[in-house]
Amino acid sequence: MYRFECDYQEGCIPPILERLAQTNLEQTVGYGMDPYCEEAARLIKERFSCPDAAVFFLTGGTQANACVISSILKPYEGVLCAETAHINAHETGAIEHSGHKVLALPGREGRITGTQVSVAVALQGDSEHTVKPGMVYISMSTELGTIYNLTTLSDLSMVCRQNHLPLYLDGARLGYALTSPVCDVTPADVARLCDVFTVGGTKQGALFGEAVVIVNPALKRSFRYIMKQQGGLLAKGRLLGLQFAELMRGDAYFTYAQKAVNQAMRIRDALLKKGLPLFVDSPTNQLFVILTDEQLETFEDDFAFEVWERVDEDHSCVRICTSWATSDGAVTALLQAIEGLE
Amino acid sequence: MYRFECDYQEGCIPPILERLAQTNLEQTVGYGMDPYCEEAARLIKERFSCPDAAVFFLTGGTQANACVISSILKPYEGVLCAETAHINAHETGAIEHSGHKVLALPGREGRITGTQVSVAVALQGDSEHTVKPGMVYISMSTELGTIYNLTTLSDLSMVCRQNHLPLYLDGARLGYALTSPVCDVTPADVARLCDVFTVGGTKQGALFGEAVVIVNPALKRSFRYIMKQQGGLLAKGRLLGLQFAELMRGDAYFTYAQKAVNQAMRIRDALLKKGLPLFVDSPTNQLFVILTDEQLETFEDDFAFEVWERVDEDHSCVRICTSWATSDGAVTALLQAIEGLE
Amino acid sequence: MYRFECDYQEGCIPPILERLAQTNLEQTVGYGMDPYCEEAARLIKERFSCPDAAVFFLTGGTQANACVISSILKPYEGVLCAETAHINAHETGAIEHSGHKVLALPGREGRITGTQVSVAVALQGDSEHTVKPGMVYISMSTELGTIYNLTTLSDLSMVCRQNHLPLYLDGARLGYALTSPVCDVTPADVARLCDVFTVGGTKQGALFGEAVVIVNPALKRSFRYIMKQQGGLLAKGRLLGLQFAELMRGDAYFTYAQKAVNQAMRIRDALLKKGLPLFVDSPTNQLFVILTDEQLETFEDDFAFEVWERVDEDHSCVRICTSWATSDGAVTALLQAIEGLE
Amino acid sequence: MYRFECDYQEGCIPPILERLAQTNLEQTVGYGMDPYCEEAARLIKERFSCPDAAVFFLTGGTQANACVISSILKPYEGVLCAETAHINAHETGAIEHSGHKVLALPGREGRITGTQVSVAVALQGDSEHTVKPGMVYISMSTELGTIYNLTTLSDLSMVCRQNHLPLYLDGARLGYALTSPVCDVTPADVARLCDVFTVGGTKQGALFGEAVVIVNPALKRSFRYIMKQQGGLLAKGRLLGLQFAELMRGDAYFTYAQKAVNQAMRIRDALLKKGLPLFVDSPTNQLFVILTDEQLETFEDDFAFEVWERVDEDHSCVRICTSWATSDGAVTALLQAIEGLE
Repeated sequence: MYRFECDYQEGCIPPILERLAQTNLEQTVGYGMDPYCEEAARLIKERFSCPDAAVFFLTGGTQANACVISSILKPYEGVLCAETAHINAHETGAIEHSGHKVLALPGREGRITGTQVSVAVALQGDSEHTVKPGMVYISMSTELGTIYNLTTLSDLSMVCRQNHLPLYLDGARLGYALTSPVCDVTPADVARLCDVFTVGGTKQGALFGEAVVIVNPALKRSFRYIMKQQGGLLAKGRLLGLQFAELMRGDAYFTYAQKAVNQAMRIRDALLKKGLPLFVDSPTNQLFVILTDEQLETFEDDFAFEVWERVDEDHSCVRICTSWATSDGAVTALLQAIEGLE
Repeated sequence: MYRFECDYQEGCIPPILERLAQTNLEQTVGYGMDPYCEEAARLIKERFSCPDAAVFFLTGGTQANACVISSILKPYEGVLCAETAHINAHETGAIEHSGHKVLALPGREGRITGTQVSVAVALQGDSEHTVKPGMVYISMSTELGTIYNLTTLSDLSMVCRQNHLPLYLDGARLGYALTSPVCDVTPADVARLCDVFTVGGTKQGALFGEAVVIVNPALKRSFRYIMKQQGGLLAKGRLLGLQFAELMRGDAYFTYAQKAVNQAMRIRDALLKKGLPLFVDSPTNQLFVILTDEQLETFEDDFAFEVWERVDEDHSCVRICTSWATSDGAVTALLQAIEGLE
Repeated sequence: MYRFECDYQEGCIPPILERLAQTNLEQTVGYGMDPYCEEAARLIKERFSCPDAAVFFLTGGTQANACVISSILKPYEGVLCAETAHINAHETGAIEHSGHKVLALPGREGRITGTQVSVAVALQGDSEHTVKPGMVYISMSTELGTIYNLTTLSDLSMVCRQNHLPLYLDGARLGYALTSPVCDVTPADVARLCDVFTVGGTKQGALFGEAVVIVNPALKRSFRYIMKQQGGLLAKGRLLGLQFAELMRGDAYFTYAQKAVNQAMRIRDALLKKGLPLFVDSPTNQLFVILTDEQLETFEDDFAFEVWERVDEDHSCVRICTSWATSDGAVTALLQAIEGLE
Repeated sequence: MYRFECDYQEGCIPPILERLAQTNLEQTVGYGMDPYCEEAARLIKERFSCPDAAVFFLTGGTQANACVISSILKPYEGVLCAETAHINAHETGAIEHSGHKVLALPGREGRITGTQVSVAVALQGDSEHTVKPGMVYISMSTELGTIYNLTTLSDLSMVCRQNHLPLYLDGARLGYALTSPVCDVTPADVARLCDVFTVGGTKQGALFGEAVVIVNPALKRSFRYIMKQQGGLLAKGRLLGLQFAELMRGDAYFTYAQKAVNQAMRIRDALLKKGLPLFVDSPTNQLFVILTDEQLETFEDDFAFEVWERVDEDHSCVRICTSWATSDGAVTALLQAIEGLE
């Protein structure tokens, strides 16, 4: 059975396990003040060309989103995002739990535009009877595997700055986005255009962990208080530092991501060649294809996909996901199965 | 340099690392629905003699406390605990962040009594102008290394049940408490007398992780929603299951704890023999001793302790902590240093 | 200048002022435990045929909504409502402030249907990654002046009960809804079909105040704690009791409401006769008509309306609102002005 | 029966009722943007010599405290106050409901000192494991009827400013404090030394209402959003403006307060003359005296007091409260009864 359901089914890249073993009985101070976290922060700041940023490490994405967003917003402010955004659709109201409204905008393949943000700000018009937009959340890649290109990201960033709205990019799958063949955004662009972003570890080769990179100086202060208050300050913080140091070392993070995206593109080509309709044409490691129930059944014995949503009476959209851990053997088997569909 | 500052300075017990390596590329479903979590839950329920309990795994103690407490309390209810309780003193208002008041009672060496709970309930008297006590939080061992014996724990449990207050025991250091030479409480007693308790991993040999054991059937429902909403549902949940399975296998959890407590007791004997005053006479892995500034200086080059609080102009209380990872060599060196104090 | 902007521009019906004066120096106990509140509760329970309900008094609508909703929902649950609902659109995130997501459904002239509720419940499917629908909020009349008839309200109520979702009806303008010529819902129907509802005072002849009527026995307990915690327990609670007693006495509440609706219907007839397009055809005291900028200008000197939204480059939707205090003279003047439009 | 239980048993001073009647059918805009609120704000700013302050009106004290405190604190900050403070002891966790810890300090007759604040700040030491003090709350008069004199208030204010902690004074009974014979603090001092304060209406002659005066320019912004979000923006805001305008006009507020304090001082003299022990020697309108059960019984038929707390097996502390509405007849009767005690 080859599993293509998601990108967090395996453990981690081998160097992480090796270094965990090597350093196991070493004694370090807790809570992220150790040399491993320091090294990881340095490597991230170098790779993303943001030497003055502050870097923090959290265990998961929902936690990272809740900490970042509640550290930025005032009580009566909300966060603008796409309707499909993870914070709106798949985090069980974590943002609302911290007291803030999620201000969802109709997404276009998971993305929102600078114009939508401008209009939302204008419509609110500083009336104290409605929630004030206080920041903008995007993800890259999005929930639908799509990405912002340099033009759309720059435009969004400009509108945010004009309106004094910090722009936060959720990079749970940032590596898969930046290594997409159609992506013209660089790591340095991300740091330049966003106020805060995350570098996702969980889905990109770590056992767990998200790095929060705060570029905007005004937002750095006191983030560790927020982390602790929300249960996100890991006692043995070095575990996170160690993992991100290994991911960043020698560009492993992007190398593994690139491999997964390449595999996904081969699968995409096979789907298109077979004439299967795409639900959305994603250029990253998540593919969304529409299959008939009969076709879905053909795959069932050897392949696991995630059924994304029911499209009509006899069609479903399924997600096919590669990851840093996807083997070439699995991809080859899948390509054959697609080709063999009747 | 021998570090006795806390019990979370090293990594984890070796079998955990081994099994992580063995299973690294195995594919499992996410979010704690995997066979490792199932195995760990079974082993915990067996060891604590609570076959019908529900077991959940979280990454840290603050997270576990916030999830458990906010899953139990109604909005206008608060949690009774000792003033020194971790939730009151060292979690940056995590409970208040979820909307609830911490109702702190004067502790007696970190413990509270059934009588204190009765009085608090009686004083509140169901007046809607004051926060209603909705549950009781204790820790075992406490922040000061002390423990409840079977009589005091039974008494507290009885008062809680009479007043319909769920009793929650924070077991971040449960192993160190239950293996204390003066402890007459068994794992089965904990499960029988409490409504919810945690089995701490982070300080007892895991890389990270706390197991939440919900015994009271009325409190089990929907806990996973709370976990997700508060950023505590780990994507690769199997990492937690795997660790607790290894900790529970062959009673490793208690064996390692016993060793740490034995080492602490040897240090305690040496402190007493030397005539050094104890701040509190703890029977577990944390010792609290009062040292002169001069004595403290003597230790500085070779030993690291945590300065707990300043006692007077030339004395401090320091915490000396053993753990599952403390080497016999370190203890021997410390014993010699204590003996050699002038 | 005749003001038709909203229904809370004047003070209160005369008997309220008279009784305030008569009883001013009387001494009563505070916080709503006085004979005036008791009398008002009794009159409301009689008029709505719900002898076993519990009745509480709050000062405003946002406060009432926040108290009711947060008293019902568990932390991870949200409230289903129409996108246009007051709690979603005009309360500055009061519900989110209490930690809960507002689950907005596309409204149809301000209403939602039983089918929409069924579908929302089915789609959530008890996945802990999404917010669980925990109750349903509707308003009567709605933000757009429309009402539920007996069929649609019964259908919604049935679906709610099948899915164990309490149904809460925000009756800020309940009197204007129940006295509409097209309304076949009686006060007794409201109490029979809803679990909680409010009887609005602020917009219906009181100085201020909303009565919360809790019919479902499971939801009554401890509501006063919620009121106090959220700053809604008025010290001189008798002021609220006295006002609702006067509103309910001799059916003044509905008599005044009927008058306002009759006036609105006369204005509606004039608008239709003049061929002016209605934005929505409301049968209650709020009318929504589309005017050209030129027409709007004609009214400006003598009449004040609320511009609801800009429809296109030269048209706006305006709200024309009558109230318990609208004079016949004002209506007559307005009818003439409409008729005189070119 | 003469009731001395509290200071919110009657309605309001006569000019308020008169003006309510005169202006009842006048039409004004809602939500506090009307001429009455403007007039009241102007009169308050004049009387307290703070021409640049921003003044807002809320309906009750718990609401005012929750709005002010949550508008100032960051999520991980708490509010320092006396253990007896209203926000700590009698508001059902309203502050915690907004996510913040109340950091209670041992009070001295209801007061705290600058030194206590300094020590609390020093002990926290900017550790992210503990709640950061973010502001200071005091009340004047305190829950025990005591007051700050100019020296203690200045000292507290200086310490607060040194530590960048806004100082908030809850003035629910501000008039009774400032007219005390031993008070050397002026209205202008209050505005000069505090960042925010309230001028209480409910207990000082209004039907209801507290004026929030924000002196510190940094804290003014967006307060109306907080008010709306927390259900405190009254639709017919003019009702609050009108009341405070009448209270401030011709110094009625302080004249009525002075009368109540004078009456209290006469009662105090009688208690002392009779040799009855005072629980605390308050110089304002609330007196706290210790009575035997037998003495308490003597009063029962003709006088109502509030039993504050049980002191020992046969003694209770009772509160005797005068107010703006206390008649001279009631005081004379009470003086006779005290004198007649055996």
